[in-house]
Amino acid sequence: MKLTQFIITLFFINFSNFSFSCNLSRSTGDMGIVIERASGSLLIVEHTNDQILCQVKGLGDLSHASAVFSRDQAYVYIFARDGGLTKVDIRQGKIVKRVVQAGNSIGGAISQSGQLIAVSNYQPGGVKIFKSDDLSLVADIPANINHSSNRSKTVGLVDIPGEQFVYTAFEGNDLYKVDMSHPDKPVVERLPDIGKQPYDGLVSSDGRYYIAGLFGEDGLALVDLWEESLSAKKILSHYGKGEKKFPVYKMPHLEGWAMNNEHAFLPAIGQHNLLVVSINNWKEKKRIPIKANPVFAMAQPDGRQIWVNFAYPDNQWLQVIDAKTLQVIKTIEAGKGVLHMEFTPRGEKVWVSVRNKNEIHIYDTKTFKRLKVLKAESPSGIFFSNRAHKIGL
Amino acid sequence: MKLTQFIITLFFINFSNFSFSCNLSRSTGDMGIVIERASGSLLIVEHTNDQILCQVKGLGDLSHASAVFSRDQAYVYIFARDGGLTKVDIRQGKIVKRVVQAGNSIGGAISQSGQLIAVSNYQPGGVKIFKSDDLSLVADIPANINHSSNRSKTVGLVDIPGEQFVYTAFEGNDLYKVDMSHPDKPVVERLPDIGKQPYDGLVSSDGRYYIAGLFGEDGLALVDLWEESLSAKKILSHYGKGEKKFPVYKMPHLEGWAMNNEHAFLPAIGQHNLLVVSINNWKEKKRIPIKANPVFAMAQPDGRQIWVNFAYPDNQWLQVIDAKTLQVIKTIEAGKGVLHMEFTPRGEKVWVSVRNKNEIHIYDTKTFKRLKVLKAESPSGIFFSNRAHKIGL
Repeated sequence: MKLTQFIITLFFINFSNFSFSCNLSRSTGDMGIVIERASGSLLIVEHTNDQILCQVKGLGDLSHASAVFSRDQAYVYIFARDGGLTKVDIRQGKIVKRVVQAGNSIGGAISQSGQLIAVSNYQPGGVKIFKSDDLSLVADIPANINHSSNRSKTVGLVDIPGEQFVYTAFEGNDLYKVDMSHPDKPVVERLPDIGKQPYDGLVSSDGRYYIAGLFGEDGLALVDLWEESLSAKKILSHYGKGEKKFPVYKMPHLEGWAMNNEHAFLPAIGQHNLLVVSINNWKEKKRIPIKANPVFAMAQPDGRQIWVNFAYPDNQWLQVIDAKTLQVIKTIEAGKGVLHMEFTPRGEKVWVSVRNKNEIHIYDTKTFKRLKVLKAESPSGIFFSNRAHKIGL
Repeated sequence: MKLTQFIITLFFINFSNFSFSCNLSRSTGDMGIVIERASGSLLIVEHTNDQILCQVKGLGDLSHASAVFSRDQAYVYIFARDGGLTKVDIRQGKIVKRVVQAGNSIGGAISQSGQLIAVSNYQPGGVKIFKSDDLSLVADIPANINHSSNRSKTVGLVDIPGEQFVYTAFEGNDLYKVDMSHPDKPVVERLPDIGKQPYDGLVSSDGRYYIAGLFGEDGLALVDLWEESLSAKKILSHYGKGEKKFPVYKMPHLEGWAMNNEHAFLPAIGQHNLLVVSINNWKEKKRIPIKANPVFAMAQPDGRQIWVNFAYPDNQWLQVIDAKTLQVIKTIEAGKGVLHMEFTPRGEKVWVSVRNKNEIHIYDTKTFKRLKVLKAESPSGIFFSNRAHKIGL
């Protein structure tokens, strides 16, 4: 082989590596992904200069997708509606592995050690747990309904410290806590009858308080996970009583519920209100009137602002609440289909997906100035890599 | 040039790149540094497999050093005792830039946007602010004592949201808040007479409450930074009254003070106690008797455990307090010179520097089992890269 041939061969070897990938050498601390829900693709982005770096295709049905990051922030795991679990190298912009692990799934979580990925499934129900390195199956936990062989849909799956996961069963009305400290011997604890039809859940950022929203009755179920013996307490049981209800086109998402040291801010179902709950006693303190039925209420990392988006047909709006005065301080008309918001890690900016305009809008949280608009195909969820180091996300 | 020559040339080009550097291509989300105080060097480490990756030399006098990370987690900035400010590429294991910006400095902070680095100086006093990319000087803020030309030492420097820094003046008895939103026009706000000789400070993880320890009088000064008009409130003014005082060989460090949603855990000065303060009313709730004079009291990321180390001559001990029962649940004899502790981002492990043994000990926080021992030259501060995304660290 001549030198020129050798160089040409080297070039083609490199070129074939480059052609379908990002091939970035940068660090990933300021990177993230945006779900493009209609095209089954995702955008790899960075929020220092607010730009799109590349696109990854072939992720399946992303109509209700979420993501978690590996503890080294090198990989993102995508949970797709079609049961697909995909591991993506975010610097290479490449799919490392993809398994279709169920017929229909709703979300997932990564364990404290980063070694396990849990997926919450609708069809068949239950939770499956995989090794994060090769996506091999470690455990299949069915969440059977009333000890029958019928599997319940599982929802509100979160990680908590101690290599544990918590979730609820929609048909079973149970809460489950699974300890995966010994992956070959999962310890499953079931707390029955927490309330009718839990439909989503969240855990406080310290991993202590789990709150399940209930579809089948008023109110929410609260579980203090620091108690030795678990029990569920009903909170806000009567918040809807005597109120005019608006039609609910989209249930609020709970994982985004905002909590600071004093208050939790909860989107009311079928009401044009944000409920402010005192964390001391879990009682309602105030209702903040807002523009329409809320979907996400997300707290800025310092807890000072709460950003709220809304359900159809009012999903062009964003409202910002000051956590100190408990007042709406800003209303923004971003465009139809505001689906998700993600703050930069220390909160100086917020990225907003505006599906119908095929745009991502980036705002300065201090001045509310729109800093930049990026193009994206039907963008929905936005996830930044600092989530790798948070409990319960 | 023959093929063999060409390959040999390529090899040497690569080799020369490798020889004085880490030259890592890995992502940095699970990386960090350990200060080697006696040798002016630092170790680049990673906490997924708990290993040392390489060593960087030439950092100056690291006898009291601290560090902050760039928002992309590619760089670490080291604040040395000799006034040196050094920017290190953590994957290359190389010094990118080093400036000696004062005669004696005590610590620093990085702004919310990541664009500015502030350094707290003893000699000459005041705070200097630099661009994070090239370490060029942006602002020099003197902290003059009583409007004289004498510069006060500054301490307790932290970042807060809104591109702001907060610090106190030891001789001036003032608190300063500096807004760097427009770097060419710093807005300096001075709150005078917060208490006698503030010697260190911390800010809560949401950037709201600043607490200054006072050397010249009993108690601490608390400032709610969410208030429009700043004011200082004295808290715990009499905690030492009537107590037997032990000699103080080392003042407690405040930046490590532990705070969860309910309580702050404060090392008492000259007492073998940890003070538990209710965050609701900032009053003392309990004193937890501990082995000796505490130095750092650090909370696990989920707030469940508080790890405490101790001043000379009792610095071989570690104690762990359960934040729920407020009891000591574990006492560990690690070896003389336990100087610092750092939790992994989600708290499953803690790294401890044991200076006199030239070792880093790594513990499982659930079982308290010592998982690994790494060799290091007089290790002191340990800093993991997830600090990049935290407020006030």
